[in-house]
Amino acid sequence: MLEYLKNHPNEKGMTMTLRDQALIIKKASISYARATTEEKNQALLAMADALEVHRQEILAANEKDVADARDAGMRESLVDRLCLTPSRFEGMKDALRQVARQEDPIGSVIRHWTNRDGLDIRQVRVPLGVIAIIYESRPNVTVETASLALKSGNGIFLRGSSSALRSNVALVDALREGLSRAGIDPHIIDLVRDADRSAVDELIHLRGIIDLVIPRGGAGLIQHVVQNASVPVVETGVGNNHIFVDATADLDMAVTVVDNAKTSRPGTCNAVETLLVHREIASAFLPKLAQALEGRCELRGDDEVARIISVTPLQEDDFATEFLDDILAIGLVSSLDEALAHIARYGTTHSEAILTQDEDHARRFQQEVDAAAVYVNASTRFTDGGVFGFGGEMGIATQKMHARGPMGLEALTSYKYEINGNGQCRR
Amino acid sequence: MLEYLKNHPNEKGMTMTLRDQALIIKKASISYARATTEEKNQALLAMADALEVHRQEILAANEKDVADARDAGMRESLVDRLCLTPSRFEGMKDALRQVARQEDPIGSVIRHWTNRDGLDIRQVRVPLGVIAIIYESRPNVTVETASLALKSGNGIFLRGSSSALRSNVALVDALREGLSRAGIDPHIIDLVRDADRSAVDELIHLRGIIDLVIPRGGAGLIQHVVQNASVPVVETGVGNNHIFVDATADLDMAVTVVDNAKTSRPGTCNAVETLLVHREIASAFLPKLAQALEGRCELRGDDEVARIISVTPLQEDDFATEFLDDILAIGLVSSLDEALAHIARYGTTHSEAILTQDEDHARRFQQEVDAAAVYVNASTRFTDGGVFGFGGEMGIATQKMHARGPMGLEALTSYKYEINGNGQCRR
Repeated sequence: MLEYLKNHPNEKGMTMTLRDQALIIKKASISYARATTEEKNQALLAMADALEVHRQEILAANEKDVADARDAGMRESLVDRLCLTPSRFEGMKDALRQVARQEDPIGSVIRHWTNRDGLDIRQVRVPLGVIAIIYESRPNVTVETASLALKSGNGIFLRGSSSALRSNVALVDALREGLSRAGIDPHIIDLVRDADRSAVDELIHLRGIIDLVIPRGGAGLIQHVVQNASVPVVETGVGNNHIFVDATADLDMAVTVVDNAKTSRPGTCNAVETLLVHREIASAFLPKLAQALEGRCELRGDDEVARIISVTPLQEDDFATEFLDDILAIGLVSSLDEALAHIARYGTTHSEAILTQDEDHARRFQQEVDAAAVYVNASTRFTDGGVFGFGGEMGIATQKMHARGPMGLEALTSYKYEINGNGQCRR
Repeated sequence: MLEYLKNHPNEKGMTMTLRDQALIIKKASISYARATTEEKNQALLAMADALEVHRQEILAANEKDVADARDAGMRESLVDRLCLTPSRFEGMKDALRQVARQEDPIGSVIRHWTNRDGLDIRQVRVPLGVIAIIYESRPNVTVETASLALKSGNGIFLRGSSSALRSNVALVDALREGLSRAGIDPHIIDLVRDADRSAVDELIHLRGIIDLVIPRGGAGLIQHVVQNASVPVVETGVGNNHIFVDATADLDMAVTVVDNAKTSRPGTCNAVETLLVHREIASAFLPKLAQALEGRCELRGDDEVARIISVTPLQEDDFATEFLDDILAIGLVSSLDEALAHIARYGTTHSEAILTQDEDHARRFQQEVDAAAVYVNASTRFTDGGVFGFGGEMGIATQKMHARGPMGLEALTSYKYEINGNGQCRR
């Protein structure tokens, strides 16, 4: 790291501080905010090309990161997230091209009216300014988040995990080259090149320079940022999600949907963690489910569940736990109200689903459950910016301020009021 | 205060903590979020009636607050803000009735589409939950902010200044009675009845119970909340605003607009603080302005300005100061670019204006100035929720996250995604 800093002295010949870096992005972001849609799209395509041009350097850097991680004894499931496989490499280029095809939110008029004084008032969408993202291991997040920030007219300051530092440096250098080729100031994107943990604390206090910080990673990181940042934060992530299989559910559909929501990618925040089953259909449904998940997922339940299917005894904290693993807690309820009360108590307002043929129950569930995404007859796994059609996501917001659920381009914007008069004064 | 707490024991017979109070609001807010527009409007009208019914108690409480404030040596300009005059009393009732007439944002569908998997996705506006507001002296803010929070389906926790505590207790008790009469759970509104400063620090850390805190008051209070809260915050307030009188400005209009922006209410955050004048018209314009403001406003300028009109010498910090007083700093510039650079350096992104007949300059100014409200040929004093047509305001946001500028009903909402399928699983 010292090497990098030595090679990047600031104007006074001293090594750059994080604040210096952020100020450079801020400055670049001011003129970049006025880039046209065409200029931004050309830049995204040039960045995709630059990744291809520098494929060898990027993959070589990634190999070193992966080797070091293995040497340091990193769990293989985490090493996998770190690894830029050929399909992930293509995925990064695709992400840039897909975001180039998304509609540009900047400059759109949200509302336009004339007030009682005859003032013409337009509420116009503008970029936020500089967005910081703090994330873990996966280097493809670097490209996904940069593409969304840049399409929405923002500068971006990236802080990936130290284990992916070489990969991220190679990626950001390539992206910057792409920007330069497209005639855009490459200083609108930069990376915290310091592996020190204190960098996070410095970053989240750069109020007035950074307009929004998004922590994207484990619960510990997110809570640390939320509790300590003075920069505005959007909380993301924790999904202790439920599926309620109602008395009128189509049981075959329910088996398929629960299987998908639990096992298709159990480590993600949109996977289901607790299954609530209506007692009326429990003895018909649970054996079907147990058979389908046989050997692929541990089921946990209390004595009542254990009288129907074979389960591991439910632990005290299981209903409050985001397993992020092949484990499913099962609870029995006697009514929609009981299911709603359970979800209100244990849910994390991420993704919740009801499987039912009862339209009133479906409607009540959607209205009364307080969550970013509330599903009727579908898997919770769809809570995702790409799947929603946003071209990717900056994260999935679990708070209500500013943005909620998958954060696409609009979530990275603010607005201003442009007001035109002919000499009006306030009475 | 102890008296109040003794009279309000919690379930265990102990005095209520702030957290207990907040939890009660939270609980009430869950069912209140589903109140219909008609129910909410009836409640607002009943609250206006209740203020009238309890006019005597409210005014008596206010008189005591005012007398105590004077005894404690409060400045007369602050005592004035504390005082519920007959017209302010009518204003509070009007505010409730006006907000009842505003369109209800809750339940409106922001977007509705079908994704690639055939899922029907609706983005629906929902309340934030519980909003806390921390404000100073003016007791009418109690009613204005409560009405907006309740119309948008939220619970509200108010923390006014200790000097207005009796007035606020009387107001909130009346509002609660109005709610009860309209069949709404009165627990959706409450007041911090503890004059201790530490209450603020407790309040801003109730993350998970309070969904948004809005500090509305002096710069010290706002910075304290922004720097220390773990609850999401919207920063409001500081307005170091500029008017740029361009070379092509209509000079008579400019005199009228600058006079209005500076002197109509100099203590407000939307007043102008610095006037930038194009050198080409300085010697024609400044004498007209000086004559109009004669004896009503102190003008400050450097030697160059002093060669045109009589001014107080400009102090070093004047361009960076929000005077909130009858003082106007004057600077001369040679171009639009110079004016833009000055505003970028000293502005607080609140309200900025250009007076010009040059349409290109007007357009560039509106695009390039980074502020909540950017005016062409109008006074900065219009940055106000009531004037914008929002029926009032929770505050004027000067950050970009969530809401910007005057915060009306929409600024107090979030959204959820309601997703309907027929058994879809994620590939």
